[in-house]
Amino acid sequence: MTVRVPVEELQRFVTAVFTRAGLSEEDAAISAEILLAADVRGFDSHGIARLDYYVHRLEAGAINLRPNFRAVAETPATVAFDADNGMGFSSAYRAMRRCIEKAKEAGFCLATVRRSNHYGIAGYYATMALEEPGMIGVSMTNATPLVVPPFARDAFLSTAPIAFAVPAGKERPLVFDGATSTVAWGKIEIARRNRQPIPLGWALDVEGKPTTDPFAARYLTPLGAFPELRSHKGYALALLVEVLCGQLAGGVWAKYVGGSRSQTLGPSGTGHAFMAIRVDVFRPLEEFLADMDDMLGELRRARPAEGAERVLVPGDLEYETELDRRANGIPVHPEVLAKLQEIAARYELSLPV
Amino acid sequence: MTVRVPVEELQRFVTAVFTRAGLSEEDAAISAEILLAADVRGFDSHGIARLDYYVHRLEAGAINLRPNFRAVAETPATVAFDADNGMGFSSAYRAMRRCIEKAKEAGFCLATVRRSNHYGIAGYYATMALEEPGMIGVSMTNATPLVVPPFARDAFLSTAPIAFAVPAGKERPLVFDGATSTVAWGKIEIARRNRQPIPLGWALDVEGKPTTDPFAARYLTPLGAFPELRSHKGYALALLVEVLCGQLAGGVWAKYVGGSRSQTLGPSGTGHAFMAIRVDVFRPLEEFLADMDDMLGELRRARPAEGAERVLVPGDLEYETELDRRANGIPVHPEVLAKLQEIAARYELSLPV
Repeated sequence: MTVRVPVEELQRFVTAVFTRAGLSEEDAAISAEILLAADVRGFDSHGIARLDYYVHRLEAGAINLRPNFRAVAETPATVAFDADNGMGFSSAYRAMRRCIEKAKEAGFCLATVRRSNHYGIAGYYATMALEEPGMIGVSMTNATPLVVPPFARDAFLSTAPIAFAVPAGKERPLVFDGATSTVAWGKIEIARRNRQPIPLGWALDVEGKPTTDPFAARYLTPLGAFPELRSHKGYALALLVEVLCGQLAGGVWAKYVGGSRSQTLGPSGTGHAFMAIRVDVFRPLEEFLADMDDMLGELRRARPAEGAERVLVPGDLEYETELDRRANGIPVHPEVLAKLQEIAARYELSLPV
Repeated sequence: MTVRVPVEELQRFVTAVFTRAGLSEEDAAISAEILLAADVRGFDSHGIARLDYYVHRLEAGAINLRPNFRAVAETPATVAFDADNGMGFSSAYRAMRRCIEKAKEAGFCLATVRRSNHYGIAGYYATMALEEPGMIGVSMTNATPLVVPPFARDAFLSTAPIAFAVPAGKERPLVFDGATSTVAWGKIEIARRNRQPIPLGWALDVEGKPTTDPFAARYLTPLGAFPELRSHKGYALALLVEVLCGQLAGGVWAKYVGGSRSQTLGPSGTGHAFMAIRVDVFRPLEEFLADMDDMLGELRRARPAEGAERVLVPGDLEYETELDRRANGIPVHPEVLAKLQEIAARYELSLPV
């Protein structure tokens, strides 16, 4: 049975685990906060279920525990960081924090990060911008190759997520966080845990054929799923993310990003890109917020299609999930719980369940 | 039968038409160049086939023939333009030109344009960046509402295209130009001209149901086509384009963009957004170009899927089409030819066919 665990207790546990695994207290706390933000928002694919993955990499020495995170090129509106193979969460957090500070000065900032690691959900960093009045945030990352270009036989690209967060006035903000593949790999992992088939078009088997069996799934399709439904567009968007996070950042591109369980445990070479846009260098903020309210309100109150209940704005489901989980705890699947118990035992920590 | 007409002759004809319709010689030449760039690159949906649409709006006084195009807010890395309801092509051209100039100074520029009009293919402006060494270009626009959000009954968003162009060294550049809807409306127009059915998932009929009949098609789906295949992602990407081109630009959002044939012939309120990124503020250009070559080369030489011929990089088909059409002329469909003849007769111009 899936149990519910309070967010704060899981956060204390994960912080303790990351500290025992060698991270500084600050990096452990930042990493725990961001890892659990996935569960809090309902991205069960990217949260506590993957704690063992990060722990495994930390224990194996694949991540630099005391990195020299630094800017290697900088102008008022741009900055390129080198994460020195540090933990992805804290490297990305520092990059976005600085990106926002620079945008407060220059009106805009584009920041890249090279030689980082898996950074959890893209959306966390985008929503950091919402802590400032009138700031739009954008976050992207590359990752290990899983996505097969249209008409190709092998995986070359990562799920290359794009996340953005746009403030509104009275309405809740617009927040999107999604892979440019049809689905993220975590959705296959969830289907496996639940022993459920997946829709045709999400994934390809070892021979490159579409499959509905999550255990046969090996590769993912670009958004659009099939050439006829324009999967070349998802492919192109993945390439845009790749160029910003890989070539522009000065790192490697997805095909050469490492870090999955099955691969050699060296530095992953993951890259990220962030943008922060200060609205009031384009127009008065109050006007912008009122216009955002108009659009988001009209969409949220739109007439539903036959058989549908309501029209959503990106971020609405995550907002509702967050309310529920902060009040009632994060659901932990039995298979995930078993992994957590194993980690707790090894580190002589008590699991808050 | 479809005839082939040399690019230069069509360009002279279209320039003459736009001049007779009241545009300045400079604006007419820029507009003709960009309109025909669509045909040259193979976007038959967006080129000469739509000349009558632009002429109709010019003749009806819906477009300001002598606009005061100006920056209304500016920082070194950002600029907001007001196009004063001028022609979309020339307004967007001036905005991207200035965006690139600013990026040469500041390393990056984000430019918005409000109160513009339909600007043709998004990709033209993105590829303007390739004229500078080491410059990445991005171009987006909103347009009239045609796209139905997942689970909604009505069209709220535009096809909201995103185009980008990234330079390479020895390899041809990476150039993408596509709507964030499954297909652009022009693809429905082409299917109608050719009396061909469309794939299920492209369009919805007047009742909001998926249809394969291009004559029954009234609305478009977001990229992803169906909720199960994650059409909420295409919807979200359309919203990102909308925020940059509408609310951030200080114009209206898609639902209130006018300008289609069937609507009132007033100012359309179309908005655009452009980015220019100078690679060498992030890393040495030569290294970037070499890394782009590696990725593009690996993709172009990738093993094809069973039954497929080759793997393409976005922009490859358009490049091949351009070679063919610059050499052999632009194919003009009989229905399009009839429309051109009507315009030629009215303006007492000779059609180069």
